[in-house]
Amino acid sequence: MKILKESGFSAEKIVENGNKFLIGNGYLGYRGTLDEFGAKECVGLNIAGLYDGVAGKWRETVNAFNPFYCLICADGAPLDVRGENIFSHEIALDMEKGTFFRETVFSVGGGRVTLFSERFISAVEKDLLCSRLRLTSEKNISLHITAGIDADIWDLNGPHLCEVETHCGGTFAEASGKTQELGIPVRVVCTFSHPLKRVRGGMGEISINLKAGESFVLDRVARVLVGEEGFSETDFLTAQEAHRREWARLWSLARLDAKGDARAQFALDYSVYHLLILAPKGNYSIAARGLSGQTYKGAVFWDTEIFLLPFYMDVLPQCAKRLVEYRVNTLPAAREKAKSYGFGGAFYAWESQNGYDACSDFNVTDVFTHRPVRTYFKEKQIHISADVAYAILKYYGRTQDDEFMLRGGLETVLSCAEFARTYSYYNHVKKRYELLDVIGPDEYHERVNNNAYTNYMFYLTAKEGVALAEKFLKKYPACGEKLLENLPAKILEKLKEWTEKLYLPQPNGEGIIEQFDGYFRLEDVGVEEVRSRLCHPNEYWGGSGGVATATRVIKQADVIMLFNLYPDLFSEEIRRANYDFYLPYTEHGSSLSRCSYAIAACNIGRREEAYSAFLESAEIDLRGGGKQWAGEVYIGGTHPAASGGAWIAAFYGLGFGKKEDLQ
Amino acid sequence: MKILKESGFSAEKIVENGNKFLIGNGYLGYRGTLDEFGAKECVGLNIAGLYDGVAGKWRETVNAFNPFYCLICADGAPLDVRGENIFSHEIALDMEKGTFFRETVFSVGGGRVTLFSERFISAVEKDLLCSRLRLTSEKNISLHITAGIDADIWDLNGPHLCEVETHCGGTFAEASGKTQELGIPVRVVCTFSHPLKRVRGGMGEISINLKAGESFVLDRVARVLVGEEGFSETDFLTAQEAHRREWARLWSLARLDAKGDARAQFALDYSVYHLLILAPKGNYSIAARGLSGQTYKGAVFWDTEIFLLPFYMDVLPQCAKRLVEYRVNTLPAAREKAKSYGFGGAFYAWESQNGYDACSDFNVTDVFTHRPVRTYFKEKQIHISADVAYAILKYYGRTQDDEFMLRGGLETVLSCAEFARTYSYYNHVKKRYELLDVIGPDEYHERVNNNAYTNYMFYLTAKEGVALAEKFLKKYPACGEKLLENLPAKILEKLKEWTEKLYLPQPNGEGIIEQFDGYFRLEDVGVEEVRSRLCHPNEYWGGSGGVATATRVIKQADVIMLFNLYPDLFSEEIRRANYDFYLPYTEHGSSLSRCSYAIAACNIGRREEAYSAFLESAEIDLRGGGKQWAGEVYIGGTHPAASGGAWIAAFYGLGFGKKEDLQ
Repeated sequence: MKILKESGFSAEKIVENGNKFLIGNGYLGYRGTLDEFGAKECVGLNIAGLYDGVAGKWRETVNAFNPFYCLICADGAPLDVRGENIFSHEIALDMEKGTFFRETVFSVGGGRVTLFSERFISAVEKDLLCSRLRLTSEKNISLHITAGIDADIWDLNGPHLCEVETHCGGTFAEASGKTQELGIPVRVVCTFSHPLKRVRGGMGEISINLKAGESFVLDRVARVLVGEEGFSETDFLTAQEAHRREWARLWSLARLDAKGDARAQFALDYSVYHLLILAPKGNYSIAARGLSGQTYKGAVFWDTEIFLLPFYMDVLPQCAKRLVEYRVNTLPAAREKAKSYGFGGAFYAWESQNGYDACSDFNVTDVFTHRPVRTYFKEKQIHISADVAYAILKYYGRTQDDEFMLRGGLETVLSCAEFARTYSYYNHVKKRYELLDVIGPDEYHERVNNNAYTNYMFYLTAKEGVALAEKFLKKYPACGEKLLENLPAKILEKLKEWTEKLYLPQPNGEGIIEQFDGYFRLEDVGVEEVRSRLCHPNEYWGGSGGVATATRVIKQADVIMLFNLYPDLFSEEIRRANYDFYLPYTEHGSSLSRCSYAIAACNIGRREEAYSAFLESAEIDLRGGGKQWAGEVYIGGTHPAASGGAWIAAFYGLGFGKKEDLQ
Repeated sequence: MKILKESGFSAEKIVENGNKFLIGNGYLGYRGTLDEFGAKECVGLNIAGLYDGVAGKWRETVNAFNPFYCLICADGAPLDVRGENIFSHEIALDMEKGTFFRETVFSVGGGRVTLFSERFISAVEKDLLCSRLRLTSEKNISLHITAGIDADIWDLNGPHLCEVETHCGGTFAEASGKTQELGIPVRVVCTFSHPLKRVRGGMGEISINLKAGESFVLDRVARVLVGEEGFSETDFLTAQEAHRREWARLWSLARLDAKGDARAQFALDYSVYHLLILAPKGNYSIAARGLSGQTYKGAVFWDTEIFLLPFYMDVLPQCAKRLVEYRVNTLPAAREKAKSYGFGGAFYAWESQNGYDACSDFNVTDVFTHRPVRTYFKEKQIHISADVAYAILKYYGRTQDDEFMLRGGLETVLSCAEFARTYSYYNHVKKRYELLDVIGPDEYHERVNNNAYTNYMFYLTAKEGVALAEKFLKKYPACGEKLLENLPAKILEKLKEWTEKLYLPQPNGEGIIEQFDGYFRLEDVGVEEVRSRLCHPNEYWGGSGGVATATRVIKQADVIMLFNLYPDLFSEEIRRANYDFYLPYTEHGSSLSRCSYAIAACNIGRREEAYSAFLESAEIDLRGGGKQWAGEVYIGGTHPAASGGAWIAAFYGLGFGKKEDLQ
């Protein structure tokens, strides 16, 4: 159970399976590739929270040297899945054990040789990853094994490691280098259960004769060491035991029960698996494509706060705390960003790399001119600050962790509100504050006024932030002064006045809340009509010339998102009307969309629609087949937010409770 | 003197010469085409101020039936300039007489046949146009002449006339129809000096034998009658005499003296000629391409107020009054437009067709996708209302015409200011009003904040409007109430408070006024670098994906324009610094740009630069060769604003005074 298997080999699926069969421990991720693969096959050992930028290219997370490279020759014939001599091939992801398996049977000289390998990234020690290789043969054969650390790294915008040094000899291999930008040392060390003779770089070789019916086993225990981190030795079986114990514990906390629905159960398990392998182990957060690679610069988006946090709050509260603390810790960078645009308060990075905004002003390349297109995600998608504040408020609502709030949580919330206050303009004719020139969750419509999601989210940020601050000032009179010391004078009065006058778009006669000023006046056409207007399959739908721009077609849930986050803000009637209104216009161009509609459907009692949207979302990485490349840029990877959103729908909406709750 | 000539015939120049050799009388324009040409050769008899729209196409001015069609056969050989039998060919525009001439000598049966024709549109009677045809031959020949009214009209977005009826017989021909949209009757009648036998439609034929050395003359006297207009008969010579007298009078008023500089004199005469043939005869204004056709929908832009009005104020004050009255008369439509966008006051049409805004929300077609691109000219180019107010204030400053101001002029100015006041937002952090989300004269940068030109122009509109209103309330206490009766309560107090707090961008340390918020942060590259990035010659430079968008490259004078309109606003030092700063970034993608720089150069004592920019501007239609077609849309025509701007530079800057002033 809970094993994802795939038989047979197809070269076209190498990249997709790299994502689908990913293993990880929150800090390290290792793609579902094979022992004999290299950079060309997108082998990736991704490190969370470690970023590097090479001049003129996008900064992104660093991939480490690959300690698990291995190419075997049996009687001179390479045991390579891409060869002609394959009898059978299967890969498997044992989600219960957090382990990747591979078994390939080769026909060699009239007999069969079986190459079995497994690998896991320790759920206990953040820097540890282990692999076991087992070779068996029907006949006596000679084996020639080349194994060790492959220093040829797959990078999207690399190379990131320079001054590379490698070593291999005896039962030890090592590759070390420094990041280009900050010179941070990155070292991969590996011990082998059998001595090797160095051939080149971090690689060595083993030559043995294997008797019919016997096995040759090679264990590798590796560590990825960043900075001055040292390491302690261990062996495969000890590490494996601790790893499996931890996974059993994780599943006992996390597993939901789909009540006998096998497809839903599997999809749900798979989603939970991905959430578990992303649970952070340190002072970093979760990237939009998780640990599956460098896509989207390995940066942290609002996905984490809105789609992932609920899972961790319920299942792994200490991880939830890390996620919210990540934002509190990066408050100075958010203040810096706000200041750089001429505003007060905290404007969080749209694509956060430890607080730094990795988002480019030219985030899209025109498919016709191949020129970069000026985009406004970084500058105008201000709702990120409301999302951050929302997460902190939610976290506090759940934990009542006063200390966290006093130690920066509340200051962060108020800073986000203050940002919106200074960003807003006063409409002196209509006597109200407005948030102008923003981008809402639906990125296809850039630079709109009074996006409903954005206005309400900041309204609630300010309102709840002020209420909490007043509570804290009373509860901890001694801390009072300190609580507000880094905030502008009279911040609470100012925010109160602001919330009283902030424009909140109201439902119209049909109960519909206009997504932004003028949305109703856009061309009333559906998704397929708009799609049919594309002149190139990879055209960007938004911007000024996009097919969706002048129409009502939206990239993803927008107004609907607001209802998910604040279900009590509007009556079920209003929520239903908006769901029915906006769904036909929604392209679901973001993996955040289906799960949002799944959650929304749950909240208006549409179980069937919710169920099918939940499945679409939970199976997104099982299905694969999505876009992996845009021009020459790799954009594939796993979709944690879809997994997290599916989990929210399953747990809070579809009633797929926890296993132990039902026993 | 003052005759523009061109010898020889080239089919490629048919369209260009149609513009270059245009005749007109402010109401009617007739392109410089030949007798034997038809719709395919862009023969056009354009009517000012008469608009029609055909379903699904742009509304535009109506072209009338062509009364001057004529095809001659001599001994069976067609006398067509496109034929093989051309001995010589010349066309001429006698600017002094407002008359177009054509002389073509054909080789027919060993002898020469000369086809001479002239035509003029009466400078005296607005609906009258005359033509004289003279045929001479070296040998006896038989002539077969087909002449009459060609009802096949060249239209960009037509056909505009339906229910067409034609008649021809004796010395009379007629074609009549109705506009599609409003059913307005349009009738062209023509009398001939020789009877015709009807052949088809409005055409008849004449067959005669012409003796060697003798002439055959055919005069045609035509009228274009719109609505229920009737007509009176006249003959060619009577009409010609009155016409020439009027042209002599016009030139005596208008001619400037370039002090012996023959090139400048000719360019200046040509510019003045174009301004004279556009002087309106009724309740309409001047279109951006004058009377040369339907380009830009025959609509009236800010060109008229800013670049043309000065000439008429100096030379033909009654025409200047018509121009400003056109805006006063269309105040209701401007109020309607403001209201439709949710604002108060008067928001003038970006492309005015008697007040109606002809500008589309999709004014550009993408050259790669062939899809319409959402543009914001109509919605965001709010400075049009300031330009209108500026013209009225200037007109009043010159004429002190209190009655005009009391009869709507002042109400218009205040309504324009009120529009800007309600359009503006209050920046509650910086304690000032701002004009957000606008397009300035430089259209390549859409949706910018605090465009300096726009902010200052509205500031001065409001300030001068209020001052005038206060003066009038004192001077005419009886009219006081009526003056403000259609304006919001306390309008003057409101506008005063607004002007006190409106943000006016100030020169920076180097004396440069930032064109709009953030302009200085744009990529600092020049025009040629940006041009080199084009992937298609007809690409639009602006919008979100244009090559200029993210750079400092601008379409036309913007900050510099402000200095031209209010030379005393800033010191010469500041004006010089801005001139030097912005000129290298200016693409001059608009014909309004060179003349603006010419005027600006005059104002900072750069005579040489001014002179060369003046010439570039004054010769724009002499040079021709500009873009005539964009994809399948004809965009060519004359450039009155460039003529008007050249005149301003010549008269006010270069010291090319009036002839009589110098005698």
